[in-house]
Amino acid sequence: MPSKTVNPDLVTERQKATFNVEEFTTWWNDGEEKKEERRALEKEFLEDPELEDDMPVSYLSHKELYEHGIKKATLVAKKLRELQDQGRTSVDNYTAILGGSIGSAIIKEGNPMGVHFVMFLPTIMGQGTSEQQFEWLSKAWSCNIIGTYAQTELGHGTFIRGLETRADYDPKTEEFVLNTPTLSGYKWWPGGLGLTANYAVVIAQLYSKGQHHGIQPFIVQLRDEDTHMPLPGIDIGDIGTKLGMKSVNNGYLGFKNVRVPRKNMLMKNAQVLPDGTFVKSPSSVLTYGTMVFVRVVIIRDAAYRLAKAATIATRYSAVRRQSPIDPSEPEPQVIDHITQRLKLFPEICKAIIYKVAGDYIWNMYNHVTGDLEKGNLDRLPELHSLACVLKALSSSDTTNGIEVCRMSCGGHGYMDQSAFPTIYGLATAACTYEGENTVLYLQTSRYLLKAWSQALKGEPLVPSVAYLGDVAGKRITDFYFDGSLTDIVRAMEFVAANKIKVAYDHVEQRKAEGMSHEHAANYTGIELTQASALYGRAFLARTAYVELQNSIKKVSPALGEVLNDLLELYLLDAFLGTMGDNLRFIKLTSGQVDQLQERMEKCLHKLRPNAVAIVDGFDIHDRILDSTLGSYDGNVYERIFEAAKKNPLNHEPVNKSFHMYLKPFMKSNL
Amino acid sequence: MPSKTVNPDLVTERQKATFNVEEFTTWWNDGEEKKEERRALEKEFLEDPELEDDMPVSYLSHKELYEHGIKKATLVAKKLRELQDQGRTSVDNYTAILGGSIGSAIIKEGNPMGVHFVMFLPTIMGQGTSEQQFEWLSKAWSCNIIGTYAQTELGHGTFIRGLETRADYDPKTEEFVLNTPTLSGYKWWPGGLGLTANYAVVIAQLYSKGQHHGIQPFIVQLRDEDTHMPLPGIDIGDIGTKLGMKSVNNGYLGFKNVRVPRKNMLMKNAQVLPDGTFVKSPSSVLTYGTMVFVRVVIIRDAAYRLAKAATIATRYSAVRRQSPIDPSEPEPQVIDHITQRLKLFPEICKAIIYKVAGDYIWNMYNHVTGDLEKGNLDRLPELHSLACVLKALSSSDTTNGIEVCRMSCGGHGYMDQSAFPTIYGLATAACTYEGENTVLYLQTSRYLLKAWSQALKGEPLVPSVAYLGDVAGKRITDFYFDGSLTDIVRAMEFVAANKIKVAYDHVEQRKAEGMSHEHAANYTGIELTQASALYGRAFLARTAYVELQNSIKKVSPALGEVLNDLLELYLLDAFLGTMGDNLRFIKLTSGQVDQLQERMEKCLHKLRPNAVAIVDGFDIHDRILDSTLGSYDGNVYERIFEAAKKNPLNHEPVNKSFHMYLKPFMKSNL
Repeated sequence: MPSKTVNPDLVTERQKATFNVEEFTTWWNDGEEKKEERRALEKEFLEDPELEDDMPVSYLSHKELYEHGIKKATLVAKKLRELQDQGRTSVDNYTAILGGSIGSAIIKEGNPMGVHFVMFLPTIMGQGTSEQQFEWLSKAWSCNIIGTYAQTELGHGTFIRGLETRADYDPKTEEFVLNTPTLSGYKWWPGGLGLTANYAVVIAQLYSKGQHHGIQPFIVQLRDEDTHMPLPGIDIGDIGTKLGMKSVNNGYLGFKNVRVPRKNMLMKNAQVLPDGTFVKSPSSVLTYGTMVFVRVVIIRDAAYRLAKAATIATRYSAVRRQSPIDPSEPEPQVIDHITQRLKLFPEICKAIIYKVAGDYIWNMYNHVTGDLEKGNLDRLPELHSLACVLKALSSSDTTNGIEVCRMSCGGHGYMDQSAFPTIYGLATAACTYEGENTVLYLQTSRYLLKAWSQALKGEPLVPSVAYLGDVAGKRITDFYFDGSLTDIVRAMEFVAANKIKVAYDHVEQRKAEGMSHEHAANYTGIELTQASALYGRAFLARTAYVELQNSIKKVSPALGEVLNDLLELYLLDAFLGTMGDNLRFIKLTSGQVDQLQERMEKCLHKLRPNAVAIVDGFDIHDRILDSTLGSYDGNVYERIFEAAKKNPLNHEPVNKSFHMYLKPFMKSNL
Repeated sequence: MPSKTVNPDLVTERQKATFNVEEFTTWWNDGEEKKEERRALEKEFLEDPELEDDMPVSYLSHKELYEHGIKKATLVAKKLRELQDQGRTSVDNYTAILGGSIGSAIIKEGNPMGVHFVMFLPTIMGQGTSEQQFEWLSKAWSCNIIGTYAQTELGHGTFIRGLETRADYDPKTEEFVLNTPTLSGYKWWPGGLGLTANYAVVIAQLYSKGQHHGIQPFIVQLRDEDTHMPLPGIDIGDIGTKLGMKSVNNGYLGFKNVRVPRKNMLMKNAQVLPDGTFVKSPSSVLTYGTMVFVRVVIIRDAAYRLAKAATIATRYSAVRRQSPIDPSEPEPQVIDHITQRLKLFPEICKAIIYKVAGDYIWNMYNHVTGDLEKGNLDRLPELHSLACVLKALSSSDTTNGIEVCRMSCGGHGYMDQSAFPTIYGLATAACTYEGENTVLYLQTSRYLLKAWSQALKGEPLVPSVAYLGDVAGKRITDFYFDGSLTDIVRAMEFVAANKIKVAYDHVEQRKAEGMSHEHAANYTGIELTQASALYGRAFLARTAYVELQNSIKKVSPALGEVLNDLLELYLLDAFLGTMGDNLRFIKLTSGQVDQLQERMEKCLHKLRPNAVAIVDGFDIHDRILDSTLGSYDGNVYERIFEAAKKNPLNHEPVNKSFHMYLKPFMKSNL
């Protein structure tokens, strides 16, 4: 057992802090009430001995891991139901409990029933008629049936129109007949599909009366409700081991003449009448909204994962001692090497800024949804373009940041007990799912090309691209850089605008040479993705500036100063990170670059005494961190050693393989 | 079983190639003879059914994986011994067979006996006296004993002088007494230590006659040769699961009054006489040489891993179809999206250039070693600085490149059967072991600071830093860029020199303000690491240019043109990747940047028809690739499906967890 005392280096770090950590946590959690609610929920779930593991799950085989995952998932769901029945938690907390902060602490490699709650239920709610909701929701809600959402196929991802699964309407029996025409049309990837779910919403190409009517959602029973045996015509299984989310049982699914009644097509948006007549959907704006919602959740999750990684690495860097700066001195805490600070502190800043930006987009989403209900669609494209680019930037930046944090812990970060491999496995998946990042950058770029052409015509622009007007209208043609924080934000906007201009001009030039718009855009794809990223980074800089300045007004001066330091480091790091573009469009002398570099180094020094206290302020429960390197008490080496002793290989002094293979081999040449 | 035919898209790709693939392979393998030797060896080992797995090892538990690893390792070692006895292979091939290309195909998560061959044996050879070699080598060589190399401790890595393990000489019994004074002094990480090895070379602080004599190597028996039980005073085990190298059984080791005879200290460099008198080592240059050698091996391995990843991603990108460029068109091969080419082709180039640079350093190493034997140490510091920075750059660039390749394959790259997770696990470890990358950049920077001060004084400079003289001596003060390939190389050197100057000036400035040199250098650490990286990249650019131009003279014009295209893309990509530094020191107009971008896009188009043929030219055996996405025949979906069917979870229609947990839960709320 690790000793109960806190590592003395961490004690000293905490004494050095210039601000009140509890106040930071309150700010970070958006107020006292939410903070306490979170803590109470964490206490309920994370201090329940029934939900703890005896042995780290990394020692299990794939099969054992699944079985363990189901056991834990049912325990969590039962407990959640009890709390719900007692009125002690709300649906708002489901995400955290099932797959978010708390869920990932309990079921470390992913909840096999997660998709049931986050996709199956919402799809029925969003796309089912009231009769369909009445029929399916209560069964699904009480988990009498477990569903998944089967869209992606082995050969088809992003381009949904290319899906191959067919649903042919048979008016004689009033049924749809589902078929998987080719191997590449097998459903592939849905979470929970492999072994857990007995129902699925299946997205398939609808054919009726010899006509194709595009893709539609169908509720399909996959397994017998009592025996769980796959139903006739259903070929189903688990796709196998993966980089992360190892207990989710992502599955495959093929259909051979599987019949479902007509009422199983979710008909809120489109219908097939008994005789096979297809009635079209009035609008598809609502689905658009769901997509944005999911991306906002991804941005928040990304920020939280990076906060975890930064917490682990920062605490470890205050405990670990390595390599004297001067040979005559003892080994310092590694956080005293400036190169180590450069690895840690910008990641702390990014975790904060992505959280802040996620909140901003969330509020925007709620406004826009409100507008939508009033029939106003004006800001939907802007919201969509921001959600796309921020999903892409947040997932890739945090994925990289997690690896930077891991490697900042040297070899020990490579052990599973550091928690980094698991965090990375979850984080990197977000670069691909819900819109592959390059595809998303290109989607945003389509919006930017349109915005730039509006700017050229002097048309009014929505807030996040208003600065394009200044550049297009030549109101700003060059940029005199004074180095203030607002100036850095303005510079980033100026650079983004110029890069959008370059990409736009190249598309136009290629069109003038005879290419179609689509092929010109494909040819210019590299610059378009770069322009999108710069637009996203300028938005982040502006949001960071505005939102943190707002926060600073509301908190104590001591905390305000820390937030200001974090903002300054964030902006300097972001600006120095795009220097190739900056110097292309803004004249900065080498001396000015020097000054920016020096300011960044000063920021790193200024944040040094507060670093541990800031990550303490994230207030991430030790069980959520789940890292021997990053626990609050900093008893790193004791915890590492204790964890190694749990390894089943260490429960016997000699492994059987010695007698079976090694000894015969070693003696064979005597 | 996948069909025997080759995917038609790959057939077409291969027909489009403008060069002879076999000629490429001969060039890549450094000649006909080496190519055929490699192929014969691969045939021998990779087509031996005894060495194949029935089921992917990713389905095994940690314990099963170790047991499986030992079984395979003994089979491989036996086969190797037979071949050796028949004179059919040489020691040169040991690395490939034990842990390199062939080894990693057979024992995918690392050979538990690898360290025995690559560290234990060489250490005895390099640091033992002839008597010690006579005593230990034949036993070790024939594997009657299996050893490991125990240096790193739980609390001590890079800074070897900080190791805590003690060896106190007892002249009464003529023995050393080994002890682990604290938990942080436990040996941690040595490969094979956990369960496999029964001996180790242990690095410990030597004390004799009350005096400390620094760290020395000792041969220590860990386990009984017959029972394999740990000997008294030995606390030993496996450190647990990791991101990669999962069957290596990295171990921990603590000593409590463990006695070894005096003759067990390896005494080639330093000795303890029977009475306890310590006799100092004459020189430590030889160890320096070994360190360089290991880093050169890392550069080559890094190149090979990236070649694997690029092969998989390129073939998959020619088979996978996704998202029409124009909505009216069918889905194109993803390689036809220019953004996809930007992900793939620069990585192909980097794999080639790192291989070429590794060869160059290897030759330099052999020259310098030759010089050393003649007592000439002149080029050793240069070699050391290059080996450091190239180890760091190659490991981090290829690690990033592997992830770029993985993500270019979308969701399917996330499956273990893509092979990317395993390749990544091996590759990223190289960023940390044998000198953590940041530490290595800083080592190189010390050399560069010295070289710059020599340049300022007008002293003669060794070839790789000769260009510093031109900048320091103000023979070149500005740079007129004409865009030729040589000009890009010269520009990169000019930029590196200027960055070194900036870092040097900042160190001097801080010293002038009163800091010690060491603290000034620590404070300037960020710029010093950046300067090192730029120096390394300039060296790579120069080497790429010179070596590929040499190759082009020797091969057919058709292959020569392809090599030239690869060189051009490599240089443009490298130059565009450091644009922030380039534009700081070189005046380029936005139009010139445009031209570089356009040339790079043209390169991507020019290489398009040859891409599959180039990765075919790497000639990596399907079993070494071990990827359902990347096999030569391109039957991607069939192979993916076949692999999923091997998943033990799919061998029964209903998992027992349904009856144990899921059904009771689902029925509980009816």
